[in-house]
Amino acid sequence: MIRVAVDAMGSDRGAEAVVEGARQAASAGVVPVLFGSAELDARGLELVATTQVVGMDEKPADAFRAKADSSLVRAVKAVADGDAAAVVSPGNTGAVLAAGLVLLRRLPGVRRPAIAVPIPARRGPCVLVDAGANADCRPEHLLQFATMGAVFAEELLGIARPQVRLLSIGEEPEKGNQLALEAHRLLAASDLDFRGNAEGRDILAGAADVLVTDGFTGNVALKTVEGTIRTLLDFLREEIAASATGVLGGLLIRPAARRLRARLDPDAYGGAYLLGLRGLVVIAHGNSSPRAIANAVRLAARGVEHDVVGRLAARLAQRADAV
Amino acid sequence: MIRVAVDAMGSDRGAEAVVEGARQAASAGVVPVLFGSAELDARGLELVATTQVVGMDEKPADAFRAKADSSLVRAVKAVADGDAAAVVSPGNTGAVLAAGLVLLRRLPGVRRPAIAVPIPARRGPCVLVDAGANADCRPEHLLQFATMGAVFAEELLGIARPQVRLLSIGEEPEKGNQLALEAHRLLAASDLDFRGNAEGRDILAGAADVLVTDGFTGNVALKTVEGTIRTLLDFLREEIAASATGVLGGLLIRPAARRLRARLDPDAYGGAYLLGLRGLVVIAHGNSSPRAIANAVRLAARGVEHDVVGRLAARLAQRADAV
Repeated sequence: MIRVAVDAMGSDRGAEAVVEGARQAASAGVVPVLFGSAELDARGLELVATTQVVGMDEKPADAFRAKADSSLVRAVKAVADGDAAAVVSPGNTGAVLAAGLVLLRRLPGVRRPAIAVPIPARRGPCVLVDAGANADCRPEHLLQFATMGAVFAEELLGIARPQVRLLSIGEEPEKGNQLALEAHRLLAASDLDFRGNAEGRDILAGAADVLVTDGFTGNVALKTVEGTIRTLLDFLREEIAASATGVLGGLLIRPAARRLRARLDPDAYGGAYLLGLRGLVVIAHGNSSPRAIANAVRLAARGVEHDVVGRLAARLAQRADAV
Repeated sequence: MIRVAVDAMGSDRGAEAVVEGARQAASAGVVPVLFGSAELDARGLELVATTQVVGMDEKPADAFRAKADSSLVRAVKAVADGDAAAVVSPGNTGAVLAAGLVLLRRLPGVRRPAIAVPIPARRGPCVLVDAGANADCRPEHLLQFATMGAVFAEELLGIARPQVRLLSIGEEPEKGNQLALEAHRLLAASDLDFRGNAEGRDILAGAADVLVTDGFTGNVALKTVEGTIRTLLDFLREEIAASATGVLGGLLIRPAARRLRARLDPDAYGGAYLLGLRGLVVIAHGNSSPRAIANAVRLAARGVEHDVVGRLAARLAQRADAV
């Protein structure tokens, strides 16, 4: 029986969607524990009453310090206290990271926790890591990110021996900035299944099982993929709406468009995973659907079953000897 | 009468497409001068016979050294020698950059030439600079890139007082890596119309008239936009083809899809512009259509008319006093 702390407040969609998602994920083996206002209709789930809410725009460190009784901080603290085995929050990413660093602390040997985001690419999920936790990195950080991303892909996404690529500006090893050049050498010398560099154009096409980069580049790339999809579909809708035949055609391709959206659905994987802490932390999208929350809770429980945190620790300790 | 040197070889589409594009751009005021094999059918245009071709995969510095009689090097040299006022090449970007640096040299005060690429965004072109010339940058380089991008947008794209944004990982000034944080301060203190940070999701939506970043991030972002568009349209085609109603709908939305492609057409602006050299250099896409080549030649000629190179020099000299 795995207890997963769920921060029910702070989602842009409101608490009801989070509660509904948690309820969907509840099973004999998975017990979501809600953290949120005492007023909340918990739909039969366990509810820990909290009095504060961290807003999306609050400064992470300030929010963490000032709001010890927020649903976000209390949910993370539940993992630190052993009351839950993992935590899911649809809230402020920076605040979750700050709370995780202080309350859960890093795994031994982890230099920097990183954010891993499974992108629904052509061949299956592509785990982008770091997607934004560390704006400035050193090459050895990228090696750790790759190692953590590979463990995540193996244990949580069921990918045996994940292929790893480094996001850079050309496929040749000598293409890149100083950080990428040095990270390339470390990755090539590691025991990971490193397949060289990938470029931005490969991300959605399915560059690799794990795509490693610094948190600045990763965040820009992730948001570029998301924004380009959104804008392109807007453009297409506008052009289709511009003529009567277009509108008719648009109706006929509606099932195809629905399948396309399902294929690209970021909710399939629940959100972003914060790797490298003594506890599994999932940051669901701020406007997560119940389905996204449910998937996040299930993946978090799966991570506990597979002892992802322990495996990360073991792998990183091995690597620490090697570096 | 403006003479524009055109590297007719080294395009993935073959020399004919380049010649055809050059021919389309030829007018009373614009005289394209072809550089390429003596065998070429020049369609009435002036042809300077060259004996070598730089391949797309050749190492830039090696290619430049070993192939002095290549169409690429000779076309750049024509500008250095005063035989042409600008050059257009659909060839190896790195080799064009190497040839430009050595043969044309940097403008006084320019620390690093940069690649500016107009992206067809929602509100009109968004000039991304640097799109890949400088993988590692310092903050003052980004200020120069922004200045050069703004002059480019004003003089070549006709945008009065271009709005400039910095590509980063959040809109707040304190979001970013060290480079972005310091560049933000320099940009905010400059006389540019600086509107703060933009994120990856804003690029295609129309983040700004000029979007400034280092060449590593810029190249990743540019290729991510291109790749995401391509993969998404592939996905859509596959889903439409998967059912009979879908296929019928696909036929009906064909004009809309055509308008969409026209709207996103990178050929509208001819390619990438190398800014900061003593001569205007345009790197057309490797698989440029005749239309892309024609637009590149026209924009290059327009750049000569507007004395973009002189204006860049003047603006950067001003800035040099200020920094």
